[in-house]
Amino acid sequence: MANPLVSDRLIDFLLYEVLDAEALCALPAFSEHSRATFDPWLGACRRVAREVLWPTYRPMDLEPPRFEGGRVFVHPSMRTCWRELVGLGVLAASRPSSVGGQQLPLTVSTLSNVYLMAGNLSAYAYAGLTTGAAHLIEAFGDDAVKSSFLAAMYEGRWTGTMALTEPQAGSSLADVKSTATPTSGGRFLMKGSKIFISGGDQDVTENIVHLVLARIDGAPAGTRGISLFAVPKLRPSGEGLRANDVTIAGVIHKIGWKGLPSVALSLGDEGDCHGWLVGPANQGLKCMFQMMNEARLMVGANGAATASAAFHESLAYARERKQGRPLGSTDANAEPVALTEHPDVRRMLLRQKAIVEGSLALIGLTAQLADWSEHAEQAERRAEAKLLLDLLTPIAKTFPAEKGFEANALSLQLHGGYGYSSEYLPEAWLRDQKLNTIHEGTTTIQGLDLLGRKVIAGGGAALMALDGRVRDAVKRAQAAGFDAAPLERGMDELARVTGVLGARGASGDVLGMMGHSADFLELASTVAVGWAWVEVAARAVQNDDDFSRGLRQAASYWLATELPRAQHLARLCETNERSYLDVNEAWLD
Amino acid sequence: MANPLVSDRLIDFLLYEVLDAEALCALPAFSEHSRATFDPWLGACRRVAREVLWPTYRPMDLEPPRFEGGRVFVHPSMRTCWRELVGLGVLAASRPSSVGGQQLPLTVSTLSNVYLMAGNLSAYAYAGLTTGAAHLIEAFGDDAVKSSFLAAMYEGRWTGTMALTEPQAGSSLADVKSTATPTSGGRFLMKGSKIFISGGDQDVTENIVHLVLARIDGAPAGTRGISLFAVPKLRPSGEGLRANDVTIAGVIHKIGWKGLPSVALSLGDEGDCHGWLVGPANQGLKCMFQMMNEARLMVGANGAATASAAFHESLAYARERKQGRPLGSTDANAEPVALTEHPDVRRMLLRQKAIVEGSLALIGLTAQLADWSEHAEQAERRAEAKLLLDLLTPIAKTFPAEKGFEANALSLQLHGGYGYSSEYLPEAWLRDQKLNTIHEGTTTIQGLDLLGRKVIAGGGAALMALDGRVRDAVKRAQAAGFDAAPLERGMDELARVTGVLGARGASGDVLGMMGHSADFLELASTVAVGWAWVEVAARAVQNDDDFSRGLRQAASYWLATELPRAQHLARLCETNERSYLDVNEAWLD
Repeated sequence: MANPLVSDRLIDFLLYEVLDAEALCALPAFSEHSRATFDPWLGACRRVAREVLWPTYRPMDLEPPRFEGGRVFVHPSMRTCWRELVGLGVLAASRPSSVGGQQLPLTVSTLSNVYLMAGNLSAYAYAGLTTGAAHLIEAFGDDAVKSSFLAAMYEGRWTGTMALTEPQAGSSLADVKSTATPTSGGRFLMKGSKIFISGGDQDVTENIVHLVLARIDGAPAGTRGISLFAVPKLRPSGEGLRANDVTIAGVIHKIGWKGLPSVALSLGDEGDCHGWLVGPANQGLKCMFQMMNEARLMVGANGAATASAAFHESLAYARERKQGRPLGSTDANAEPVALTEHPDVRRMLLRQKAIVEGSLALIGLTAQLADWSEHAEQAERRAEAKLLLDLLTPIAKTFPAEKGFEANALSLQLHGGYGYSSEYLPEAWLRDQKLNTIHEGTTTIQGLDLLGRKVIAGGGAALMALDGRVRDAVKRAQAAGFDAAPLERGMDELARVTGVLGARGASGDVLGMMGHSADFLELASTVAVGWAWVEVAARAVQNDDDFSRGLRQAASYWLATELPRAQHLARLCETNERSYLDVNEAWLD
Repeated sequence: MANPLVSDRLIDFLLYEVLDAEALCALPAFSEHSRATFDPWLGACRRVAREVLWPTYRPMDLEPPRFEGGRVFVHPSMRTCWRELVGLGVLAASRPSSVGGQQLPLTVSTLSNVYLMAGNLSAYAYAGLTTGAAHLIEAFGDDAVKSSFLAAMYEGRWTGTMALTEPQAGSSLADVKSTATPTSGGRFLMKGSKIFISGGDQDVTENIVHLVLARIDGAPAGTRGISLFAVPKLRPSGEGLRANDVTIAGVIHKIGWKGLPSVALSLGDEGDCHGWLVGPANQGLKCMFQMMNEARLMVGANGAATASAAFHESLAYARERKQGRPLGSTDANAEPVALTEHPDVRRMLLRQKAIVEGSLALIGLTAQLADWSEHAEQAERRAEAKLLLDLLTPIAKTFPAEKGFEANALSLQLHGGYGYSSEYLPEAWLRDQKLNTIHEGTTTIQGLDLLGRKVIAGGGAALMALDGRVRDAVKRAQAAGFDAAPLERGMDELARVTGVLGARGASGDVLGMMGHSADFLELASTVAVGWAWVEVAARAVQNDDDFSRGLRQAASYWLATELPRAQHLARLCETNERSYLDVNEAWLD
């Protein structure tokens, strides 16, 4: 049986039962939608994922981009993938009709994108990056920029990239050194080096628009002097497109995502690289961060998708592969049984399911908050949704990446010696997954963002909002007969520890607060995924089919085996455990 | 600075302070040894590891074995590595002088081998496998077998392999189907297929001796009908060596260990494959298992070595790489600081250190038990050491592999985007590490072995012995001023839960007992590594230099952050948590 990549029944259940996507259609923004428009969209995504992208996954993994004569050549099947993705309408699916989009709720488009990612995450990434870059131009560009770039990007004639990172600065965007010198014509002359630019060159479309962070001459140091620019590979001129002095300095040999080139860009080697300012001068990081929720949620979805494909692969393998005998069997002549007959194999499968489907549920809940935060009719409702969205984004980005990596390792492990070979697929997904803990902000950065910016800086309001949602879900689940008590206790721990850390920080002990950011991120993630599972279980409790039993079992598993960790993590924070805070680098070797 | 691969100071400290290797020299078996013989040996291993093996690691990773014309061609530098390993005397280092060895204690040879593994684990594996195969022949072979094979193997003219696994059987050795038909000359005619045979072919030595599990015609089904055979690639004959009908059916494309071919063997396609029985008929698995402790400890050492090299790589990188500003800094013009200035980076380094050095300490303690179990003068002392050795082996095999994989992922993560590229080394070690949770018995198998065979079947005697060691270490550490209370509590949990599981199994609930084997393995591992760290800390407490401070800090870290998990795991066992026991495979998708 072909790998389904993602469970249709689960996605339908999440969308229509847990998230009630149809209720979104009562909002003016989505008034033209209904299940009658969502379902065909989902069907089209499933088809493209399974029939177009998925067959190209392994060939792209085996034949990475070539860098020849200063240009990057990607796998030839990327052209077909791109044509089908564009034809599907994925680039502007969630954008308004004014820019050619379908204005689908993010709740729907995010969960449907998971299929495309699971089919071939590199191929989908060209689309995701293009949408992200175009969305920045749509949101912050002036008419000149928009008219130069927007239509070509949303229509898929050109692709887009995000060009933030520089070799010397890494995660530290405050240290961006690329420069932009104003010209009399209103454009800027760009100069600088960018690295790890996904899709930074390709031979699929005629042009590429890089969204570049740089400093206008004389701008202040640090993050307050960074501006955002659109810098095309070829720039529009009187005689059509001409080279814009964007040089490919090299290709990074990534260990996964092999269908998508990651390149080092050199801007303005010849002093002739034109950039268009997007948004106000010196506000580039702010603009970028307004898109960050979407980009980070996309990484979370990548993580869930990558773990999902591997989970289904290992489930099918475990059902087919006959090996060993049941526990306690002493009959040497008995036939071998399927791997699924072994309790520890079922445990490894259930653990993958709990991680994959818990991630998908959390991503759905987060995407729904994004919809409400932008489109709810009452300002108050929008503000509360935005608070929660900001809080959950670092979690929805990190959890599927970190725990997804564990799930991917279990998928490989379940294949035994075969899993350790490149004749089987789990090793490829394991490689792919690792990038998700690094790009769009490493796990360390997400921890600092969650604790420092999202929780403490906001004075705890976001956590209060989460608290409300969690307790409401617990109440509904309990009423339906599902024991959600461990989640309530986890939420208690999270709320209490937040107060303790905040007070410690307020007293001036920055290390005693922020030094526990990794503990706090893990604690909050455990609770948030617990919440997602309880939302699922509260609905699944109504039916008694295999599918619903499985969801309840996975929810129970998560609450029984993971939620107790909240108590331990809370204690490390509360007692201000010093073993890792006080370590001196000179003691390490 | 060059990567040291393994800390010399740590290994010296473990050997001479924690394990008191010199005390072993009071035993008759080691009476010719002293620190004056150990130190030059260690020095020679360090030199070969750093100067010979390490420079070949990446080249071998990039250029895996080729399979051409039915033969396997390995990386050309393997010839140099082999010559130096043989010249070093590593093949018979721990064997007696009667077979040309140096009779080094396993305590010394195991920890010195870690350098060779860290330098190039594939290259070392040719030696480890040859020693293992030769040791089987030495222990169980009759004079005919020994005179045919032993000297050539210990002298490094021929290599050896372990040929257990068959394609249809995987981990289930009871299902081995290869056959052996007796001939009038005392030899057997072999027929069958073997898979995942490491070093199963190569072009480095003139011959290879496979230690093969097969069934003599008419043998009983299951594990009681399996015999052990020496099956050479070329067999000795009147006119020298001639082909022995061992065909290479294919090479497995492993994702790591790329210097070491893993092949599928076909025995007796032409009906002319001769095998020599090793040990009594139908006792092959028993013979094999008598060597299993050594083989599994070797896998644990591989895991520790692989994580160690990556740890040191990331420590050096974090010290060199300047990025970002200290927590709370608001000066945008300040210079970037080293990564080690960031608390979460130090935490990730300390976590690697705790895993790597805790693994090495546990491996040292286990190897020491192997020495006492074989060479202690009193039978009682030997028996107690054997009990503990058998108990700790599945833990010393699994912990460095499973937690080492986490440490390897942290090393990659600390390198950021660079870590995700094959221009840097951490990704290669991450790939290498994954095999250690699979070969020589998967983690699932180790859990079943630990709980079923080592703990329950022995009636708890082994755990009592561990309990004594742990409480003694706690007492010494406390007396020296190191707080080891969390270890004592962890041991309490382990002891209590063993009783509960045993009683449950005795009452006939096999699933309620063995279904928690993974929990139990993790619980026992957490405690065992806690014990190893307390043994280290009890010694390190005496000094106040950076090195000793680091050891104490890592010990405190382990006890504070990991030992509390014992309580949670114990509760899952004690309450007989059913979420993963009762899951039905039909509920999973």
